[in-house]
Amino acid sequence: MVSTWVPDVSPDTPFSLANIPFGIISSPADPAPHAAIAIGSYALDLKLLSQHAAFADVFPVLKNHVGIFEKPTLNEFAALGRSVHREVRRAIQDLLSAETSHPEVLKDNAELRETALHHRRNVKMHLPMSIGDYTDFYAGFHHAYAVGAMFRGPQAALQPNYTHLPVGYHGRSSSIVVSGTLIQRPVGQIVIDPTAEPKQPTTAPSRRLDIELELGCFLATPNEMGSSIKVTNAEDHIFGYVLLNDWSARDIQTWEYVPLGPFNGKNFATTISPWVVLADALEPFRTKGIDNWTPLQGYLNEGREENVFDIELQVDLQTPEGDVTTICTTSSKYLMWSFPQMIAHHSLGGCPMRTGDLLGSGTISGPSMREKGSLLELSEGGKKDVMLYGMDVRRFLKDGDAVRIQGTCGSSGARVGFGECVGRIMGAAPL
Amino acid sequence: MVSTWVPDVSPDTPFSLANIPFGIISSPADPAPHAAIAIGSYALDLKLLSQHAAFADVFPVLKNHVGIFEKPTLNEFAALGRSVHREVRRAIQDLLSAETSHPEVLKDNAELRETALHHRRNVKMHLPMSIGDYTDFYAGFHHAYAVGAMFRGPQAALQPNYTHLPVGYHGRSSSIVVSGTLIQRPVGQIVIDPTAEPKQPTTAPSRRLDIELELGCFLATPNEMGSSIKVTNAEDHIFGYVLLNDWSARDIQTWEYVPLGPFNGKNFATTISPWVVLADALEPFRTKGIDNWTPLQGYLNEGREENVFDIELQVDLQTPEGDVTTICTTSSKYLMWSFPQMIAHHSLGGCPMRTGDLLGSGTISGPSMREKGSLLELSEGGKKDVMLYGMDVRRFLKDGDAVRIQGTCGSSGARVGFGECVGRIMGAAPL
Repeated sequence: MVSTWVPDVSPDTPFSLANIPFGIISSPADPAPHAAIAIGSYALDLKLLSQHAAFADVFPVLKNHVGIFEKPTLNEFAALGRSVHREVRRAIQDLLSAETSHPEVLKDNAELRETALHHRRNVKMHLPMSIGDYTDFYAGFHHAYAVGAMFRGPQAALQPNYTHLPVGYHGRSSSIVVSGTLIQRPVGQIVIDPTAEPKQPTTAPSRRLDIELELGCFLATPNEMGSSIKVTNAEDHIFGYVLLNDWSARDIQTWEYVPLGPFNGKNFATTISPWVVLADALEPFRTKGIDNWTPLQGYLNEGREENVFDIELQVDLQTPEGDVTTICTTSSKYLMWSFPQMIAHHSLGGCPMRTGDLLGSGTISGPSMREKGSLLELSEGGKKDVMLYGMDVRRFLKDGDAVRIQGTCGSSGARVGFGECVGRIMGAAPL
Repeated sequence: MVSTWVPDVSPDTPFSLANIPFGIISSPADPAPHAAIAIGSYALDLKLLSQHAAFADVFPVLKNHVGIFEKPTLNEFAALGRSVHREVRRAIQDLLSAETSHPEVLKDNAELRETALHHRRNVKMHLPMSIGDYTDFYAGFHHAYAVGAMFRGPQAALQPNYTHLPVGYHGRSSSIVVSGTLIQRPVGQIVIDPTAEPKQPTTAPSRRLDIELELGCFLATPNEMGSSIKVTNAEDHIFGYVLLNDWSARDIQTWEYVPLGPFNGKNFATTISPWVVLADALEPFRTKGIDNWTPLQGYLNEGREENVFDIELQVDLQTPEGDVTTICTTSSKYLMWSFPQMIAHHSLGGCPMRTGDLLGSGTISGPSMREKGSLLELSEGGKKDVMLYGMDVRRFLKDGDAVRIQGTCGSSGARVGFGECVGRIMGAAPL
């Protein structure tokens, strides 16, 4: 294991030298959002680094893109393609390693080290990408089955198409926010008494506000409209990954979603973690996903089994009183469809994918009751209490509750993680 | 009726002095996309006009935004708000009228007139707006009923929510193209024999490629995330309108759309007309929409009856042999929900609407068989031939077919129209 000269890097940090995730920061000294990477408790300011005379020598692949880390999003960097991300990540790993081949740039340069290494508590995180379109898939098999059974009964839990194609829907990009943003409880049309006929909606704050534990995937390079991305080339179109909480108002969703899918039940907010873990950093953690017993259409056949990642995922709920309970621990391996399959399917008809587009995996739940990625499942459709520390219980979220998602791979000293994806619920706007 | 000094303005042009729609053009002399308005057979180049010394005098409301018409989209202009659009439209109407109060600027300025008035056949049209999110509603009552009956039978044609809220779904913004762009037939998963169980999809070019006749609405000013737009204020958030063809692959859609809504059946292409007709220009053509027998939730109550527009709509189909048949003539009044109601519903839970967001009305069909805005309806679910000139018939679109949508209001000499929304079908990409 290679070690770093950066001080105070805990062996349990998700931001080890094996990671090097990219994000967008601002600071009191430089309030214009710009690029950084995370290492231990620090953010290395790539804008300041790129102003160093030796930048083009250390990052020869960026010699024609010297201002790229001064931009307010990572889109231009992402658009350079995966081989460039790989070279830049390796060069940063070298710069930060104890045995760096360029000690003069940062390790032995007290002035730049002092200004360019910000303690992360002193920087503000921003959305890492300008997101053109956001698509949310439904690839979490155990979630799709459990929720399908609740909405439509166990006989029709999985629709006939589920094992043939990665089902997904177009989401709302305008309401994607970075971790830490307050989430306002949405008002919407809800049916208080679902047994009454005809159904009578009322306009009220959602009473069934929920989370969805997901992995998000950012696109790097686009395809032209009319062309499709082959499943075996799709990895090359991926920039990296974030944790994603697809906040969901179940009562609004239940009433609105037929026949055209979720709308106001979802579009009030989606939270993502701020640091984009590059695709390369997750490569060592590949594993096999959920078996699909249906023969695949050719365009979905990857010719490999290890097509998902085994990321340990954890969801904590903090009550307004401050008590924290881990309500879910599971793995991102419980997907029936991989991101390459989602990309191949999404572009099959020629739909153009653009740099910065975001794909959500769909809610990730494991087979056991402690592995459910939504309160809808944890409370068995809102029928059972989820027990919390502090003698408290929940079926859905209360005002003042905060939800923190964490995800990490690897062992002590070389962890690759996402940090936190956090949101706290505010009361609804007055009617 | 006020007349214009611009030459050769036919009394039947959709671009009379009563209209003044905005678009984005480029020309061989100036290939960088920039703003223009349409008048008769001409495009008035607003970039060249804004470089005239008197610009700030003629458009005092733009005196701090002199470069606004040099931008490649209309977003910055739209973001200035409806009162600014109103003043600018009025000032342009004055500049172009025979009795203009500023003859020295254009009417009597041969040099600028010569350079700034392009014949429209000499300019290329571009997408008028940078579109953040695209949402497609389902407000065309006769279409929703007819298609619902086909997919789910007449008993369940309209879902219980249909008359309570404007049903809609998030569309794909990356595949919105301007009129004239070739449309490639999408490949997708389709079920050839819908009676076989279990259903077996195959991957093939769509065999049921269709159109959807819609009106599109561009947003001007945003709301903040967490706040909603009141239905009575929503008009102030509207920039203007375009014609929209929501190309649809019915076979792909039928297989994929449960439970999360349309996806690849729609996201391969959406065509819009290039000229944005400002909201003010349509005001004289207000009328009453389709009666809704259900008492409205308060947030949807506009307190007025004339909440839609009576735009005469026409769809022509041109075969590869060149024969043109008008397959539909109807009116945009056949909506059960108005755009202000769609905006109020969309933002009810706090979803932020941004400048340049596009809303589609949903397919507009009238009650009679000649007024159906999709081939699905015209062919009664693909079961009957639609008769065309040239001894030809269609149920769905063939490669080489072109579809032209037109829309116009008002009487000769003062027409307010959209021009054309055109697309021609290319064969599918090789599998």
